[in-house]
Amino acid sequence: MYDVVIIGAGPAGISAGIYAVSRGRKTVILEKNAVGGLIGKVSTVTHYASVIEAETGDTFSRRLKEQAERSGIEIVNTEVTSVELMGKTKKIHTAQKIYEAQKVILANGTSPRKLAIPGEAELAGKGMSMNAAKHAELYRGKNIYVVGGADGAVKEALYLAKFGAKVTIIHFEDQLGCIAEFRDKVAQTPNISLCLHSRLHAVYGVDQVQSLEISDEKTGAIETIEDAGCGIFVYAGTLPNTALYTELTLEDGFIPTNEKMETAIPGVYAAGDIRIKAVRQVSTAVADGTIAGICAAAD
Amino acid sequence: MYDVVIIGAGPAGISAGIYAVSRGRKTVILEKNAVGGLIGKVSTVTHYASVIEAETGDTFSRRLKEQAERSGIEIVNTEVTSVELMGKTKKIHTAQKIYEAQKVILANGTSPRKLAIPGEAELAGKGMSMNAAKHAELYRGKNIYVVGGADGAVKEALYLAKFGAKVTIIHFEDQLGCIAEFRDKVAQTPNISLCLHSRLHAVYGVDQVQSLEISDEKTGAIETIEDAGCGIFVYAGTLPNTALYTELTLEDGFIPTNEKMETAIPGVYAAGDIRIKAVRQVSTAVADGTIAGICAAAD
Repeated sequence: MYDVVIIGAGPAGISAGIYAVSRGRKTVILEKNAVGGLIGKVSTVTHYASVIEAETGDTFSRRLKEQAERSGIEIVNTEVTSVELMGKTKKIHTAQKIYEAQKVILANGTSPRKLAIPGEAELAGKGMSMNAAKHAELYRGKNIYVVGGADGAVKEALYLAKFGAKVTIIHFEDQLGCIAEFRDKVAQTPNISLCLHSRLHAVYGVDQVQSLEISDEKTGAIETIEDAGCGIFVYAGTLPNTALYTELTLEDGFIPTNEKMETAIPGVYAAGDIRIKAVRQVSTAVADGTIAGICAAAD
Repeated sequence: MYDVVIIGAGPAGISAGIYAVSRGRKTVILEKNAVGGLIGKVSTVTHYASVIEAETGDTFSRRLKEQAERSGIEIVNTEVTSVELMGKTKKIHTAQKIYEAQKVILANGTSPRKLAIPGEAELAGKGMSMNAAKHAELYRGKNIYVVGGADGAVKEALYLAKFGAKVTIIHFEDQLGCIAEFRDKVAQTPNISLCLHSRLHAVYGVDQVQSLEISDEKTGAIETIEDAGCGIFVYAGTLPNTALYTELTLEDGFIPTNEKMETAIPGVYAAGDIRIKAVRQVSTAVADGTIAGICAAAD
């Protein structure tokens, strides 16, 4: 029996755990992947207040993990298979056991959205990637394509430009949807070019990418590009990991909360990217976790 | 003419500035003291996610300042004397000049509350202090008194216990009002003792503290303690720095906002400890700043 079970060990979940434990609550965090969540896979952590210069997602996450361990949080590497959130005692099921607690904090964020195009699954790890920090080195001196035009995509394109001969950003809008800082840096990076109002339509190859097809949003024309051995990095948005939370009423897949991070079910909190909110940044995930951890520990 | 003027260079103000600048907005931060705000004066920064081990308020603030400078924010060391928040162009007056901007973010937090007891002002810097990180060394081997029983007070008492012969926490409640983690650490620190349901009533001395009077909340009795050369550190809560904001309707001195950090006046935002909020921690101040900076830059 725990006081608090937290699902997800990203910035929101770890922050929630740190505060719950500091208030004397027996706390466990369940995480199916690595501590850090999506931020662990970014090439650089840029705007988080007092971040170390040249901080990477990897170094950020490692420090997050060490801090959690020092604070006495139990972190279990396991996948949640179902949840029972109603009632006084919450039950969180995994393949190994059932975790019971008075309070649950849902902090398992979002997952990168796949494109669902021909070749995407077949060439995953053979040219197709969703992790520039990990795979950039494989494409040193080769051509690289980045799919997406929001902050996350453009930030990784800037990073990939240090490795690739040429980086092409494929984005379906008429202009990049990123912040001015990144747009300015793109303009100052000679080996990045933009392929706008365009979508990646298909990828072909066997052991590596041989060619890709790009469709024009305006004309519908499809262009085939032969580029053997190139790398394609997809940053096409994210989807909330809320499939298990059928007891909650979701909005566009996200969880509604009040300012205390309480969901509609008493004793159940949500924190970070998984909840409905105006601004999704590391800092707001961390603050959500702070509030959820403190409020869950309080009553 | 600026896009955004931010008042206060604590975690909220700096975070707001980082995001406003990243979105291409010409931004200035006005700060009358040092970058970092109140957190710059704490002995340790404990629960902020991914914080460096053994982080102090000083190291945290220094990194905050470096990050702000790298990002291209202008920080001006000046005191705001009056503000005109109504209308499209906001005017922020200082002794030197008037700063004009479309958007203003109020992020100048709170100030430590004084006790308003005899001897407090006269012995400031001569035994009375509000900054353990800076002054602890002066009382090595001497007796130290900490006034206050909330998190901030007890955290500093734990730090001061490494310097003082004996540390006495004077708190008006029947028990400490701090988190379990700190309460446990106090119990494990032999040279800390508690003086509960008590208030510091007066301090006497000339060049140093000679004696102090402590009143018992229950009996009203006043005890005089002779303790020449002791240190007295006051952590008796904080008060919002909102005296200049007469155009806003305050609640208990704090500024109401919505979840976008908008105040009741269009174009005026508030972030951090200065606003009404459920949880006051560094992380929530940083997130407030993130949201205010992004929203102020957006429209």
